[in-house]
Amino acid sequence: MSNEDKIGTFHFVAEPFHVDFTGRLTMGVLGNHLLNCAGFHANDRGFGMATLNEDNYTWVLSRLAIELEDMPRQYEDFTVRTWVENVYRLFTDRNFDIRDKDGRVIGYARSVWAMINMTTRKPADLLALHGGSIVDYVCAEPCPIEKPSRIKVTSSEPLAVVEAKYSDIDVNGHVNSIRYIEHILDLFPIDMYRTKRIRRFEMAYVSESYYGDRLFFFCEEVNADEFHVEMRKNGEEVVCRAKILFE
Amino acid sequence: MSNEDKIGTFHFVAEPFHVDFTGRLTMGVLGNHLLNCAGFHANDRGFGMATLNEDNYTWVLSRLAIELEDMPRQYEDFTVRTWVENVYRLFTDRNFDIRDKDGRVIGYARSVWAMINMTTRKPADLLALHGGSIVDYVCAEPCPIEKPSRIKVTSSEPLAVVEAKYSDIDVNGHVNSIRYIEHILDLFPIDMYRTKRIRRFEMAYVSESYYGDRLFFFCEEVNADEFHVEMRKNGEEVVCRAKILFE
Repeated sequence: MSNEDKIGTFHFVAEPFHVDFTGRLTMGVLGNHLLNCAGFHANDRGFGMATLNEDNYTWVLSRLAIELEDMPRQYEDFTVRTWVENVYRLFTDRNFDIRDKDGRVIGYARSVWAMINMTTRKPADLLALHGGSIVDYVCAEPCPIEKPSRIKVTSSEPLAVVEAKYSDIDVNGHVNSIRYIEHILDLFPIDMYRTKRIRRFEMAYVSESYYGDRLFFFCEEVNADEFHVEMRKNGEEVVCRAKILFE
Repeated sequence: MSNEDKIGTFHFVAEPFHVDFTGRLTMGVLGNHLLNCAGFHANDRGFGMATLNEDNYTWVLSRLAIELEDMPRQYEDFTVRTWVENVYRLFTDRNFDIRDKDGRVIGYARSVWAMINMTTRKPADLLALHGGSIVDYVCAEPCPIEKPSRIKVTSSEPLAVVEAKYSDIDVNGHVNSIRYIEHILDLFPIDMYRTKRIRRFEMAYVSESYYGDRLFFFCEEVNADEFHVEMRKNGEEVVCRAKILFE
């Protein structure tokens, strides 16, 4: 199989309600597109959610890191390409590049996924999936951004508290992965986005939260323009962590 | 020009993060698609936002009413068709139908738009736009749902208060029309959506709100399963009103 057969290519346009006040695509919408591309790519190759669900398995997103030099502007076309970088027993690394209307790479993303049994919620052996055929899709395409790193927050003073509402909840009954990104971006004052842009955004999904949960956001500026955020539900259990690098 | 030339047809799929916990497309996402279709359709015919902006004019959405028998499920294809029903001096009526994966009509929508001068914010004469050529697109396609009606809320006790944040703000610096829909749907407990569905949703956009505004939501159950909502910014000026009919 050639590398090009292993790579999924998907075309988008930056819709008016998907750009922020600067006219650039929001990180939440880009995250949504990346996860959709992951789904379409896996589905086209026989290891998508729908197929897995039939066997009582599902994909769980563990990490997401996005690093960008630029963002598409309102009405601009852009392209997302995605491929599988590695398959281990319990995790698989899926990478992405993001290209602007002229085909120039403007960013990359890395994601880490596990497959779990939907009944036991325990991780399953990826190398046993369809006799390990997922490894046939491993592709040596470059993704020159750092792997997701460790995120540590020690603050005990929440910056914000948000109650999970109807619009936050996905078909699994969980707060959806994209809403976490939006709630985290909303922690920063709009002036931050007026003078700076997000160069890198990282998420570590740790546990699930549900309708009515009170989501406490703890935030620290670890270095100049580098923020670490931890979200704990009902003030205790960690739900996710994020790292945001502005420039 | 045949009716079919006057109608724009657009295809979508219900993406995983665009469905709610019941697995059905959310009203906010459908609203987003309708407004995008309006934009694409107008643009293809030379009276879209981009062209208008060049002349210092813009479209302003005044009313939106959506009535549905069903909603697309996750991963299902669906189609939106849109056309211009009427053009008056200060308003134009644009209608829509929504069709499921099998082409069956599952709902209709009506919208009312004004064109304003971007400097004076005053309404402009639609019949003077390109020598009145917009009337060439008027199309006698049926849209058998009621026109948007009057919405009146007398309650003085807010049900919720939301501060407008970064993710709420669009490229014009206003809280975006779709976010209002989401905030309004979030007023209802999730059990409402477990046992009922929205048959009709109406919005009247009255004035703009901005980053940092405190949005007060006043809500009344006018009849069984019929709710009227008024949103006032900073407790005073009306921003929008909505009517929600559950069944």
